[in-house]
Amino acid sequence: MGSLKSHISAETVGKVITCKAAVAYAAEQPLVVEEIRVDPPQRMEVRIRVLFTSICHTDLSAWQGQNEAQRMYPRILGHEASGLVESVGEGVRELEIGDHVVPIFNGECGECDYCRSEKTNLCEKYRVNPFRGTMVHDGKCRFSTKDGKPIYHFLNTSTFSEYTVLDSACLVKIDQNAPLRTMTLLSCGVSTGLGAAWNTADVQSGESVAVFGLGAVGLAVVEGARTRGASRIIGVDINPEKRIKGEAIGITDFINPKDLDVPVHQKIKDMTGGGVDYSFECAGNLEVLREAFSSTHDGWGLTVILGIHPTPRLLPLHPMELFDGRRIVGSVFGDFKGKSQLPQFAHQCVKGEVKLEEFITHEMPFWKINEALQLLIDGKSLRCLLHL
Amino acid sequence: MGSLKSHISAETVGKVITCKAAVAYAAEQPLVVEEIRVDPPQRMEVRIRVLFTSICHTDLSAWQGQNEAQRMYPRILGHEASGLVESVGEGVRELEIGDHVVPIFNGECGECDYCRSEKTNLCEKYRVNPFRGTMVHDGKCRFSTKDGKPIYHFLNTSTFSEYTVLDSACLVKIDQNAPLRTMTLLSCGVSTGLGAAWNTADVQSGESVAVFGLGAVGLAVVEGARTRGASRIIGVDINPEKRIKGEAIGITDFINPKDLDVPVHQKIKDMTGGGVDYSFECAGNLEVLREAFSSTHDGWGLTVILGIHPTPRLLPLHPMELFDGRRIVGSVFGDFKGKSQLPQFAHQCVKGEVKLEEFITHEMPFWKINEALQLLIDGKSLRCLLHL
Repeated sequence: MGSLKSHISAETVGKVITCKAAVAYAAEQPLVVEEIRVDPPQRMEVRIRVLFTSICHTDLSAWQGQNEAQRMYPRILGHEASGLVESVGEGVRELEIGDHVVPIFNGECGECDYCRSEKTNLCEKYRVNPFRGTMVHDGKCRFSTKDGKPIYHFLNTSTFSEYTVLDSACLVKIDQNAPLRTMTLLSCGVSTGLGAAWNTADVQSGESVAVFGLGAVGLAVVEGARTRGASRIIGVDINPEKRIKGEAIGITDFINPKDLDVPVHQKIKDMTGGGVDYSFECAGNLEVLREAFSSTHDGWGLTVILGIHPTPRLLPLHPMELFDGRRIVGSVFGDFKGKSQLPQFAHQCVKGEVKLEEFITHEMPFWKINEALQLLIDGKSLRCLLHL
Repeated sequence: MGSLKSHISAETVGKVITCKAAVAYAAEQPLVVEEIRVDPPQRMEVRIRVLFTSICHTDLSAWQGQNEAQRMYPRILGHEASGLVESVGEGVRELEIGDHVVPIFNGECGECDYCRSEKTNLCEKYRVNPFRGTMVHDGKCRFSTKDGKPIYHFLNTSTFSEYTVLDSACLVKIDQNAPLRTMTLLSCGVSTGLGAAWNTADVQSGESVAVFGLGAVGLAVVEGARTRGASRIIGVDINPEKRIKGEAIGITDFINPKDLDVPVHQKIKDMTGGGVDYSFECAGNLEVLREAFSSTHDGWGLTVILGIHPTPRLLPLHPMELFDGRRIVGSVFGDFKGKSQLPQFAHQCVKGEVKLEEFITHEMPFWKINEALQLLIDGKSLRCLLHL
């Protein structure tokens, strides 16, 4: 894998780099692939050469400008990627030029009260924050257009660019022998879903699971439940085509709510003798959330929310329902502490304990990024890997 | 304590007993203390002589008929008590005549999937159910009026009577050396509150806690947090008189929301550097619940709901708020498995590890029960112990 070093050059260190990036100029307008300028990394920052990036629903909703506070333009989106360290800023000790890295939108400084707590993976400074568009260090942008206008950052990462600058807290060093192509998936979707099963729910062998929404994150939950030895993994999706991929990864049963004449939760209760041990909401829809909650077994059922809910509506739960012993929690980045735990997770993937290849349904060159975006909008791709 | 045996007689075994009880004939009407008839216990049932009973808010809301489905008359309320086994029905092995017992409204059969699970204390057959007014065994009443009309049961217990019949799953045998007078409190309030701190939240030494509503249950949470070594225990109540009792039990700070010009959660965040580790909602009010939730530290804060919420309104939480790492759960009977765990808890109380005497603010003879009810309505008593 040493040959990857040809992708970077010592000559750019300390200088502004001019490279290609896909820039968002307005909500729902095609991304513009054009030349931009990338400043050198500042204190505790790292500049990387992105080799692969893919598109996730969080990019999609930011591109659509669903939330007003997120509408800042021009902006470089993208947060799932892999690449090489091109140069490091002052103070960076644990990364050096040529290291293989995966960006994490939910950083880990390792020093704050949150990072030192075993109960959370939300870092005080570098936690996921879709409303921040500049670097934490100085509140400025490292990107600019050719005529000098600043370009906003996104989710600590901004990977839709040949080069990007991140805080070192938002980069995980990966074993040089791990294939960066599949490691890209650890940057968001697979870690988020699989971690929700492993870390948030802590699914045990023989337990039962229902996954609502079989996109990449939902299927990663399925993979997490499968690797833990769940006895029953029920996939729920209104798209009948999801059954095939679901079965390839590990669902034992598929439910299309449109085919039922009873509510989904009733069907699941009937199938499992009272409900599943865990349900995962990966659809970002409150009606689905309600079904997921009602599908778990009373006494001990746990519902994990993974979907993004842009609605102003509140949780459709009555407080007294919590006295039936059902619980509900949110999960961010699969409750992985990225820098501490992802290298080990990568190692498990390399050993073949976790299926990754199944999640890559499409591949194309970076300049076709708008085509990749459309595939995701149309529900045709899980992950379309863009090669830079 | 052997002398207590004089309270029961071998002559009543197998016969209908005529005794005094406080009967509810209509919502919000004074209870009628009158002679009733109590049948012998059936299979797996036990008849007990009640020596002490007290009134809890759950009795109060049933008496007020807040929930239509709970309005069944005549009915004998009451669920917090202690007494002696008078006789046992067929099949009862672990209890015998003269045993000291504490009723539990949230029973434990020991054999169902729920009882065998470590994750719940809700028994399949004998869990708390305010809508059931008859015995589980045959769906009939063991009480009747002098003219033979059935009298409904309440919460598996119906302790406002000199004699009552319970399923053996709903009786905990207590060491003969434990004073039954204070053991009465283990039957509901103290177990519920203290258990929420010990079992549901699992408060650790040095952690911080806020308790919303300083009635008996809230103060029992305080006692639970104190015995676990919590460093900060903030009591919140709109009744300024609660400060004194709160401080006697263990609060380190008292907040009267009426004295503040900022929301309670803001005050608590300022006091604790970002919020408490745990908050407990013991007021049964959704605005209070919202404040309790917002008072916890993001990343790991846990809110435990103990209050009863008769409102049709839903949880005032947005699904995305769960991504900040705050959690919310309900707690029933302090997550104690009554029959398995209360004997040990009673032992700790006898050794003086837990304060009980502080919770008994009034004592009076059973026939003054309506007076005791009024004390609770007026917020003047924590527990008024009725002597039978």
